[in-house]
Amino acid sequence: MDLIRQHPDKFDVQVLTAATSVDKLAKLAKEFRPQCVAIADAGCEKQLKSLLQGEGIDVVGGADAIIEAAKIPADLIVAAIVGAVGLQSTIEAIKQGTTVALANKEALVCAGSIVTDLIKKHQTTLLPIDSEHNAIFQVLDERKAVEKIILTASGGPFYRKTFEELKAVTPEQAVKHPNWDMGKKISVDSATMMNKGLELIEAAYLFDMSENEIDIVIHPQSIIHSMVCYKDGSTLAQMGTPDMRIPISYCLDYPNRLQNNSPRLDLTEIARLDFFSPDMDAFPTLKMARYALKEGGAAGTVLNAANEVAVAAFLDKKISFTDIPHLIEKALEMKGASTLSCVEDILEIDRQTRHQTKGFINGTVRQSA
Amino acid sequence: MDLIRQHPDKFDVQVLTAATSVDKLAKLAKEFRPQCVAIADAGCEKQLKSLLQGEGIDVVGGADAIIEAAKIPADLIVAAIVGAVGLQSTIEAIKQGTTVALANKEALVCAGSIVTDLIKKHQTTLLPIDSEHNAIFQVLDERKAVEKIILTASGGPFYRKTFEELKAVTPEQAVKHPNWDMGKKISVDSATMMNKGLELIEAAYLFDMSENEIDIVIHPQSIIHSMVCYKDGSTLAQMGTPDMRIPISYCLDYPNRLQNNSPRLDLTEIARLDFFSPDMDAFPTLKMARYALKEGGAAGTVLNAANEVAVAAFLDKKISFTDIPHLIEKALEMKGASTLSCVEDILEIDRQTRHQTKGFINGTVRQSA
Repeated sequence: MDLIRQHPDKFDVQVLTAATSVDKLAKLAKEFRPQCVAIADAGCEKQLKSLLQGEGIDVVGGADAIIEAAKIPADLIVAAIVGAVGLQSTIEAIKQGTTVALANKEALVCAGSIVTDLIKKHQTTLLPIDSEHNAIFQVLDERKAVEKIILTASGGPFYRKTFEELKAVTPEQAVKHPNWDMGKKISVDSATMMNKGLELIEAAYLFDMSENEIDIVIHPQSIIHSMVCYKDGSTLAQMGTPDMRIPISYCLDYPNRLQNNSPRLDLTEIARLDFFSPDMDAFPTLKMARYALKEGGAAGTVLNAANEVAVAAFLDKKISFTDIPHLIEKALEMKGASTLSCVEDILEIDRQTRHQTKGFINGTVRQSA
Repeated sequence: MDLIRQHPDKFDVQVLTAATSVDKLAKLAKEFRPQCVAIADAGCEKQLKSLLQGEGIDVVGGADAIIEAAKIPADLIVAAIVGAVGLQSTIEAIKQGTTVALANKEALVCAGSIVTDLIKKHQTTLLPIDSEHNAIFQVLDERKAVEKIILTASGGPFYRKTFEELKAVTPEQAVKHPNWDMGKKISVDSATMMNKGLELIEAAYLFDMSENEIDIVIHPQSIIHSMVCYKDGSTLAQMGTPDMRIPISYCLDYPNRLQNNSPRLDLTEIARLDFFSPDMDAFPTLKMARYALKEGGAAGTVLNAANEVAVAAFLDKKISFTDIPHLIEKALEMKGASTLSCVEDILEIDRQTRHQTKGFINGTVRQSA
């Protein structure tokens, strides 16, 4: 919204959505004058309607309202809902042929081949907002000449810790990301490095790369956002301050570049960039994500659902930090053979895995009691 | 030649030239079978003819032979002669409309606007081989959206020394570049940082940038070869091991990427990249190059000619390391008002400056005796 605010003549906001933030949504609606606002939490609809009374803006509420909102014609939709819950609205936007600026990584993790098939079918353009994928998108222009891609990872707040040391990590510690200001769920994912695991799968579908063509490198300063290595020995990188306005800006006005007032990169001030290999023992989620990507089918859906449930339980202090990878591993072990032919299959596997993982958690809680 | 050797079916070598290396030239001629070989040193022509007797290869010698060789029709010419002496052959190639892979930076330093005008007139493509400019060329595709470019500099072997400490530097120390394996002249230029000054001017003409749009950052590891900063806060960089095969490869098969066996970049092995601002007091050549670029006209020609004479005198142990910037400064001070309308003007100013600088050196030698 800050970028749109910097270019009032360039953008016309059609729809705004939120999960539960009624006040913020109402405030933005009054500023940007969309034709419609949708709030996912149906219980908030009444309050939102009251806040926007007489403004001439349609107000709708509930999970389905979000999905319907994605069908409203627009040139571009920013799909920024966190979690598998963002899948359906993303798919509806793709079906409309609306260019999708994708910040929701779970759509590709849970339903990679379904989403990429739909994109081809509806000739939709997908622009990655996730900073790593946006970086790759900016420097990848000859797919056939690519040798590999390198996803950089800040390593989160704990990248020097051992698995043993991670057992005592609290939610308060886990949500404090050193570089990026993000939501709680993604901050915990960054702390377990599952965020990078999800991004690995996302990158594979976005750029049609196989698991062994994607490297992950820890780069604590988050200045190089990712790289593409070409078969002539050249590596191209996109860099910048860790500010999400930069990748969002690239998507909002693609293929042009939108002037913005984000802080500029000063390498002499940063002085030093470090790189090292991730510790696969301390962060087993990376191994699980690689397994899920190679396995294909429902493995990504299971990986993501188990992770979402585990992270929520960790934030609720029901399980420990290192229980998160344990629960994901269990879910992957329990996964039956399954083929994914439609979104309903995904939603069913997602539902089953959540149910199962919650069962494990209750077991875990009982064991520690 | 190593890259061409890796792709024998892709390239057909028409002409090979050398300055004085008769044996190497004869050996390459036997391997690559050009129609013509030219050696700049006329005194070597006889020996070269004898080495290539009965091979069915034309052998020519002398400075003019090199210029004539540049007129032989070809798809691409690699202009890799060091110094202002490479100017005329580069211009002849441009006039033929031959795509020029430019490793000679002095053509643009001495005759920037003449060369760029000729390129437009003859619709020639200029591909920069110089690793920094090649890096920029790889990541610059929307000129109008560029905010600035950043040339990285290894800093050469002495980047931590003060001007006082530099006074005692010997030619043996100066030619030992920490990262790149290069000729003596360019290694000394790298040690005085004049190489970066010449590259600043080269970049300004190649990419149509003004002096204040080009930053120079010391990056001792020579991994990021240069960067383009866009107005949306994104900085794009080309990276790679310090191996000239990589930028040459990019030019040989442009716009495709040529598979090659150059060593691949492993950032986890390098582990750390550093960046800091150059010390303008220890390396005054940078100030002089910025002055020459802003001044325009003959200033680049004077800067380059004085530098070439001074570096040769330093390598001959006639002057000290810090006499090099002193001599360039004197030459710039002495420079009269002049307009450059043709190559002959450039050659005349180049000749005058060399004569004058040699005079200063003899003066210097006398003073210290």
